Amino acid sequence: MKPRLARYLPILTWGRHYDRSALTNDLVAAVIVTIMLIPQSLAYALLAGLPAEAGIYASIAPILLYAIFGTSRALAVGPVAVVSLLTATAVGQVAEQGTAGYAIAALTLAGLSGSFLLLLGVFRLGFLANFLSHPVIAGFITASGILIATSQLGHIFGIEAGGHTLIEMIVALLSHLGETNPITLVIGIAATAFLFWVRKGLKPLLRSFGAGPLLADIVTKAGPVAAVLVTTLAVWAFGLQARGVSVVGEVPQALPPLTLPSVAPDLLRQLVIPAILISIIGFVESISVAQTLAAKKRQRIDPNQELIGLGAANLGAAFTGGYPVTGGFARSVVNFDAGAETPAAGAFTAIGLAIAALVLTPLIYYLPIATLAATIVVAVLSLVDFSILKKTWSYSHTDFAAVAVTILLTLGLGVEIGVACGVILSVALHLYKTSKPHVAEVGLVPGTNHFRNISRHAVQTDPHVLTLRVDESLYFVNARFLEDLIQDRVTEKGALRHVVLMCSAVNEIDYSALESLEAINHRLRDMGVGLHLSEVKGPVMDRLKTTHLLHELNGQIFLSQYDAWKALTEPGKIVA
Amino acid sequence: MKPRLARYLPILTWGRHYDRSALTNDLVAAVIVTIMLIPQSLAYALLAGLPAEAGIYASIAPILLYAIFGTSRALAVGPVAVVSLLTATAVGQVAEQGTAGYAIAALTLAGLSGSFLLLLGVFRLGFLANFLSHPVIAGFITASGILIATSQLGHIFGIEAGGHTLIEMIVALLSHLGETNPITLVIGIAATAFLFWVRKGLKPLLRSFGAGPLLADIVTKAGPVAAVLVTTLAVWAFGLQARGVSVVGEVPQALPPLTLPSVAPDLLRQLVIPAILISIIGFVESISVAQTLAAKKRQRIDPNQELIGLGAANLGAAFTGGYPVTGGFARSVVNFDAGAETPAAGAFTAIGLAIAALVLTPLIYYLPIATLAATIVVAVLSLVDFSILKKTWSYSHTDFAAVAVTILLTLGLGVEIGVACGVILSVALHLYKTSKPHVAEVGLVPGTNHFRNISRHAVQTDPHVLTLRVDESLYFVNARFLEDLIQDRVTEKGALRHVVLMCSAVNEIDYSALESLEAINHRLRDMGVGLHLSEVKGPVMDRLKTTHLLHELNGQIFLSQYDAWKALTEPGKIVA
Repeated sequence: MKPRLARYLPILTWGRHYDRSALTNDLVAAVIVTIMLIPQSLAYALLAGLPAEAGIYASIAPILLYAIFGTSRALAVGPVAVVSLLTATAVGQVAEQGTAGYAIAALTLAGLSGSFLLLLGVFRLGFLANFLSHPVIAGFITASGILIATSQLGHIFGIEAGGHTLIEMIVALLSHLGETNPITLVIGIAATAFLFWVRKGLKPLLRSFGAGPLLADIVTKAGPVAAVLVTTLAVWAFGLQARGVSVVGEVPQALPPLTLPSVAPDLLRQLVIPAILISIIGFVESISVAQTLAAKKRQRIDPNQELIGLGAANLGAAFTGGYPVTGGFARSVVNFDAGAETPAAGAFTAIGLAIAALVLTPLIYYLPIATLAATIVVAVLSLVDFSILKKTWSYSHTDFAAVAVTILLTLGLGVEIGVACGVILSVALHLYKTSKPHVAEVGLVPGTNHFRNISRHAVQTDPHVLTLRVDESLYFVNARFLEDLIQDRVTEKGALRHVVLMCSAVNEIDYSALESLEAINHRLRDMGVGLHLSEVKGPVMDRLKTTHLLHELNGQIFLSQYDAWKALTEPGKIVA
Repeated sequence: MKPRLARYLPILTWGRHYDRSALTNDLVAAVIVTIMLIPQSLAYALLAGLPAEAGIYASIAPILLYAIFGTSRALAVGPVAVVSLLTATAVGQVAEQGTAGYAIAALTLAGLSGSFLLLLGVFRLGFLANFLSHPVIAGFITASGILIATSQLGHIFGIEAGGHTLIEMIVALLSHLGETNPITLVIGIAATAFLFWVRKGLKPLLRSFGAGPLLADIVTKAGPVAAVLVTTLAVWAFGLQARGVSVVGEVPQALPPLTLPSVAPDLLRQLVIPAILISIIGFVESISVAQTLAAKKRQRIDPNQELIGLGAANLGAAFTGGYPVTGGFARSVVNFDAGAETPAAGAFTAIGLAIAALVLTPLIYYLPIATLAATIVVAVLSLVDFSILKKTWSYSHTDFAAVAVTILLTLGLGVEIGVACGVILSVALHLYKTSKPHVAEVGLVPGTNHFRNISRHAVQTDPHVLTLRVDESLYFVNARFLEDLIQDRVTEKGALRHVVLMCSAVNEIDYSALESLEAINHRLRDMGVGLHLSEVKGPVMDRLKTTHLLHELNGQIFLSQYDAWKALTEPGKIVA
């Protein structure tokens, strides 16, 4: 009983050994992460089209729940850029920004996403996330980064703009450009420039002044806080709000409220597909971070338990005024680097954010939206990485096609269509590749027992024997290919008496391929040619033994290709 | 220039060597096939919901066009049962049976299907048909046979009935059962029983009376003609039409008319998916027959040219009052057995049918619909074969699942949904299987250079070295599986210093898997464990050489697993 419970509640494992040293380390990490999270949470809520406080709320209960159910010791859960964009897209289709319906739809999306993740975890279906190939993810993240950065330009110029595709966004920006608020633009550009400098120039500078790497890192991560403080003070001191600078405004000074997601069937139906998409993309992002960090300490991540942890976190967000969350890359790395030892660090971060929600919220009344937009732009531009195009091009053109299509469609038709087409294309390209497997005609390397491709090596062959090595599992997508190929080769070669299929790389023969082999066997028999198999793997042979093929085989099964060669060739006929 | 033209016009190849003996053989075959085709064509047109003559028309131009463009010497093209059912389903959704719109929709379906097949052929995309796995086809054909036979029961009882799913059909039959016409029922049952007896009992009887196999076969195939003659005469002689027996009625005494398919965008949009489905199912049926017959004479079938041949045949049907056609199994076998040597036999069959359309049509006025229904029932029940369930169950449960789902959904929700779900399920199950590949931990078989699964064989291992043989290509669907697996194994084994991946069955490493290997490499390095690869295949290695992985590899690449073993193990530590 105990181990089973501990599997579903990882807190029981690490909680038993929790000590003073771990407590100290976790507290330090929590303070650093809290400072980093406050501006980030506000900004991402804005990106999702929600009031700023939703970002803070989405960081409190989810962090606590993940600390109980999650397996990663360092993962920091909360709002992240890509999921916030996906939320804005999904919720924008069912409700108007700024309405109560919009906030409820966001809660509902978190609730659906949490339920879906929990289901996947309980039924151990985490492998479904594997359908997102790395090229599709990379292309999607790059395109999302561009979309997110573009979506924030309106806030930096102080104009209204919208749109879900790159072209829509650019058109909206250009058509409102005349309404630019110069003061907002100055704040936005200054904040952006400052944050870029903090990211690129400050750390080396601090190091050259003799600061330790950890201190340099913390100061760098506090850059957004400094930008927030300075611009907020400027707006307050110079009364810039009266001159058209948009500010965050009134934020309730309270702990996260208790909220209820909607159960209206219509709304649920409209949000279920986006919720699945958000869940899977969020899970993939989160698990990659978790595994990378866990490996550094030789710890184990259980992907299915991670689904349960993230599911609980999202359900938490749904009932406490939040919106969909996941494990974020930047914050988790900060948490890890700052020395977090257990998920308790997350719990302390949650407490820190709860205090901020209670105490600091009045102070952000004058915080300019443009500063938050600058925070987002600088954060997401690090996601944009076109090098994946070059890398995949040089490695494999099909992977390149998946990246290119995902980027183009995400930018051109929106995030949901982009990622869906990327996934479909990856699967289709994989099936296409395996539909035309590499088949080598092989011959004997003189003086050895080895058989190699006749077009790559100098080998011996016999005009009466055709030996084909198929470098792929045989299944329905390529079964007919093999039929065609053998029929072609055999009709070409008049003198042929034996065909040997060398199966060393055949990991599976499904029922379609079995029937194709039976058809090949019958057809070769009609032509007076024998069909032989060599080097069939154990599990494949176990299956074949249950079939008629072996009894009806118009030839033999050889353990090794060399046995086949000795039995079928005639010494006088061998051609070197 | 010549060989290229000959590739697209196979008639240029066989036409040049056409002689008297081939002519005689082709003429004999054509006479036999013509006799068989007349009742069959009328019956299938009825099944498709079209006037009886459409079946004859659909056999004339298509056969001629296939004779010019097709590569099979024996394939007989025309209306077939499954495609007729698919036509009835598709056209029934857009028009009412018996209206002019219905006939035009059927022509349009043939036009779309022909265009799609031509496109596939010209762009050499015939491999797309491979997505129909053998279990899905077998399940689909069996379920279609049941649906077709059930759909004909109404005609045998002389009542109106309809429906596209088994339940709908049964409900419609039962609710009209009180309206049964007793004379129609007698004709229908007598014809069905007679035809069953001809199929099962007549041939052995004739053989026991000393008839040759060919003669016995021809007499057997003429059974439907006898049933047609006798029942038609009975209706005419006893005036049964006045007593409620439905007959074929007036059929125009003419050559196939020149017709035009519709180009209304709405209709095209509604028919395009059914047209694709019909094309692919028809192509799969046709190519299997063509290849089986070609193999018997060591001839070659070009699948892409077959697409062009069938495309031309369907376009021919669209412009001459027909409906979608394909190569039929029964008629092609009869053609082949009767000695057809070239596609000219098909051309002579077309002439025979044209004469029938001109001369015989008045004679079929009194042909009872019930007789045609009996012909269909007896023909399609030979398609029903549940043994595929047993065969796939004993071979592979995933293939069984594909068959069972296809049969149930085809019967329960109709042909289009049934086959679509079957295809999707096959692909999903294949991806699922490859998402969790077989990974064996291997050790050295003492006294050899061979490495085998430690759980199947008595082998030597070293606690510092973990050797894993992955029996699957590495690609995005299983990339993360490998990451999880290695992380699990390594965190379990404290003493581990080296992980060796034995890649003898890895036929591909895609970009996602490459990144997973890089992640595994980094994580193992963080844990102080080396990552080594052995027995990497040539084409895979060629690709890996272009990447960073090889430079950053925290270990070595070994040509053989034995080399890896010698280099990494310490003789004192080896455990037998």
